[in-house]
Amino acid sequence: MTLSAVLDRIDTDLPAALDRLFDLLRIPSISTDPAYDADVARAAEWLAADLASIGLDAAVRPTSGHPMVVAHGDGPGPHLLLYGHYDVQPVDPLDLWHRDPFDPELQEVDGRKVIRARGAVDDKGQLMTLVEALRAHKAETGALPCRITVFFEGEEESGSPSLVPFLTENADELRADLALICDTGLFARGVPAITTSLRGLVGEEITITGPRIDLHSGQYGGMAMNPNRVLTRILGALHDDKGRVQVPGFYDDIIDPPAEVLEGWTALGFDADAFLGEVGLSLPSGEADRTPLERLWSRPTAEINGMIGGYTGAGFKTVIPSKASAKVSFRLVAGQDPAKVRDAFRAWVRAQLPADCSVEFHDHGAAPASAMDISHPAFAIALDALSTEWPGKAAYIGSGGSIPVAGYFKEVLGVDSLLAGFGNDDDAMHSPNEKYDLESFHRGTRSWARILHEVGQA
Amino acid sequence: MTLSAVLDRIDTDLPAALDRLFDLLRIPSISTDPAYDADVARAAEWLAADLASIGLDAAVRPTSGHPMVVAHGDGPGPHLLLYGHYDVQPVDPLDLWHRDPFDPELQEVDGRKVIRARGAVDDKGQLMTLVEALRAHKAETGALPCRITVFFEGEEESGSPSLVPFLTENADELRADLALICDTGLFARGVPAITTSLRGLVGEEITITGPRIDLHSGQYGGMAMNPNRVLTRILGALHDDKGRVQVPGFYDDIIDPPAEVLEGWTALGFDADAFLGEVGLSLPSGEADRTPLERLWSRPTAEINGMIGGYTGAGFKTVIPSKASAKVSFRLVAGQDPAKVRDAFRAWVRAQLPADCSVEFHDHGAAPASAMDISHPAFAIALDALSTEWPGKAAYIGSGGSIPVAGYFKEVLGVDSLLAGFGNDDDAMHSPNEKYDLESFHRGTRSWARILHEVGQA
Repeated sequence: MTLSAVLDRIDTDLPAALDRLFDLLRIPSISTDPAYDADVARAAEWLAADLASIGLDAAVRPTSGHPMVVAHGDGPGPHLLLYGHYDVQPVDPLDLWHRDPFDPELQEVDGRKVIRARGAVDDKGQLMTLVEALRAHKAETGALPCRITVFFEGEEESGSPSLVPFLTENADELRADLALICDTGLFARGVPAITTSLRGLVGEEITITGPRIDLHSGQYGGMAMNPNRVLTRILGALHDDKGRVQVPGFYDDIIDPPAEVLEGWTALGFDADAFLGEVGLSLPSGEADRTPLERLWSRPTAEINGMIGGYTGAGFKTVIPSKASAKVSFRLVAGQDPAKVRDAFRAWVRAQLPADCSVEFHDHGAAPASAMDISHPAFAIALDALSTEWPGKAAYIGSGGSIPVAGYFKEVLGVDSLLAGFGNDDDAMHSPNEKYDLESFHRGTRSWARILHEVGQA
Repeated sequence: MTLSAVLDRIDTDLPAALDRLFDLLRIPSISTDPAYDADVARAAEWLAADLASIGLDAAVRPTSGHPMVVAHGDGPGPHLLLYGHYDVQPVDPLDLWHRDPFDPELQEVDGRKVIRARGAVDDKGQLMTLVEALRAHKAETGALPCRITVFFEGEEESGSPSLVPFLTENADELRADLALICDTGLFARGVPAITTSLRGLVGEEITITGPRIDLHSGQYGGMAMNPNRVLTRILGALHDDKGRVQVPGFYDDIIDPPAEVLEGWTALGFDADAFLGEVGLSLPSGEADRTPLERLWSRPTAEINGMIGGYTGAGFKTVIPSKASAKVSFRLVAGQDPAKVRDAFRAWVRAQLPADCSVEFHDHGAAPASAMDISHPAFAIALDALSTEWPGKAAYIGSGGSIPVAGYFKEVLGVDSLLAGFGNDDDAMHSPNEKYDLESFHRGTRSWARILHEVGQA
């Protein structure tokens, strides 16, 4: 049987696959820092060469920023677009690392083997699970399991400035039946998951001006309005006692997830106490009448991400400042229109403003939420394949954050995405001593081999 | 006649007096920021040398904080304690200054000459009116007009931590018949005033901690409590709709000014619209059922002088921060106990805190309000002398600000204070582009020469 031969080959080839991953991890492809531009380019070249060695028609494709790696290979099944990113986060604070972030090592921690290096989980280790699955299939069968387009990005950690232009310019070349994105995590250790909903985001900055200059609080206190008072009064009323956002109409257009998805979430047995306990908290902050996973995945939120006003240095200054400002963001869910939410927030702020204070708003971007159409047969196949490969039963889950590339695949290419990945919560993504479990790398590769095989046969 | 000769000398010596003031203004003696410690010390040395040049026995006297300048000189009249402070406020936001705050310049504004620099009005320009009056008297008559003790402080803008210990340790040396304090303003342009009541102050910093580390608002938003939300919710409720402070018991112990004082204030014809219009406002912020001068002089207030939490740099970061903090101050009036107000505020904050968030309080000093005993004959003499020197008739007024030293002179030394000063409302005290009218510096020096002469003769 073909699949079991492919899986056996993955097992046998694991040491060589690790050597390849380590070669890639040794390249410090930090995309946000221009000092590493040549390294980012070198990582792209390395990947193109590796994909060519499997028999794909691979090329490094320039952009006005860092290059994309695009590779094509024919196959029997549907056309799949495979996405990962080969750039990594900066490594500071470097003194918190226990070894060179770009000198990868296989370590044993609590009886488990882990790959320790910057980029191990985010996203080089995950990206290579896709590559190794293709390699094993090709080596064992002489062909690819499906028609494949590989699309690896080098700017994911620096805002993806070239992504939409590149997708737009090369839409005909990149359009596929479905995208497979490997940049997410397991639901829990040993429990795989497919992420089918992602929250959107509205970013907004508000600046309130009271007096035209900073004033002495002794001289003016009792007569002059303090913009810190106006700002705290308005933002202090952003949530009610039950955690509901008070901007009128905020919840109006929400499309709830299907009942069966919500039931699936309940079955996950999410441990909210442990989740909050890990960060030193015990009382959930969101809507009191919603389950923890609804609050994180299918309910919108409002957060004051930053605020500043008046004197904030050492010591004390008895000032009534002229200005106070806050950065406020809203996480959105299916059905909510970012522009409508922004407008409603602005109107709500204006309605509470004293007549002689003024407010300025600054738009910090927006992205709608996305909910995947799981009717493509690959979803059921993948859920089954993941459940077979891993100890735990695979589940459809949501994500509280945004993975913009999934939205852009849908918007620019018209392609839905199947998001699966194998990271664990303790991988220290974006932090010192990042790691990827060897189990994730190995079972992850086997997972994609199963999915690609079954989708190719379907 | 001695007095007219002294006044003539002040007129003739004005350019040299300005040069001396500019030398002092060039020293960035910001007491709240340890980066300027050496500059604060340099300003003290400069003053001691200048006082010695007049013939006083002057010395820089160390404390556990910034030094005091103390000087003694014999004379015929009563023993007067002359107070001013040589430290200044920080200069941020620096980009709003039209020139270097520590590069003083004589400018012409609307036909009036003004001295532009940090510290021009608060308090170096005012302090030097005392010094120049002594200098002119000594130069013209060969003696001082009264027995003089000069006491200049370097920590007035940073809570005066060393003041009470120093007064206590040196009480016998510093005790006098009356203190003259030059750190207040005119009632209106050309209208001098003696301040007979001062609000007190409680300075408090609160820091609220939610999660033990900064969190990603996508991953945790809806579950983890944001300390910015807690802080705005609490401080947003500090005032009610009618401008009343909501801390329980806040207004309980207030002693209202005598009816005749309140009637005198009414006679001043204070133009509240112009007062607010000058700083770009039109709606009074304080207690709705009180007159403007009561709100400024005899009613307590609460202000958020500074607040910060989360990401406040350029762009946007979707963070749920671990901490948020605010600097809050209360202006107190006669009867209020600073310690009781601080305790009530802390209890009120704690009562509103979610059970899994914590709060730390930092005491930034306190001073009770004070009301002067105006029975010393110097009060009537000074009212008369000021009315002679200035175009307008002098009045007894209140002050919204704190001059804690007056309270401590009374408390520690048993000495009453006569507060007169020559600042104008448009001096931008504590703000960018601070200034002091040349008229204030010149007539101020002449005013003290008159007062010292008459008190010495009385």
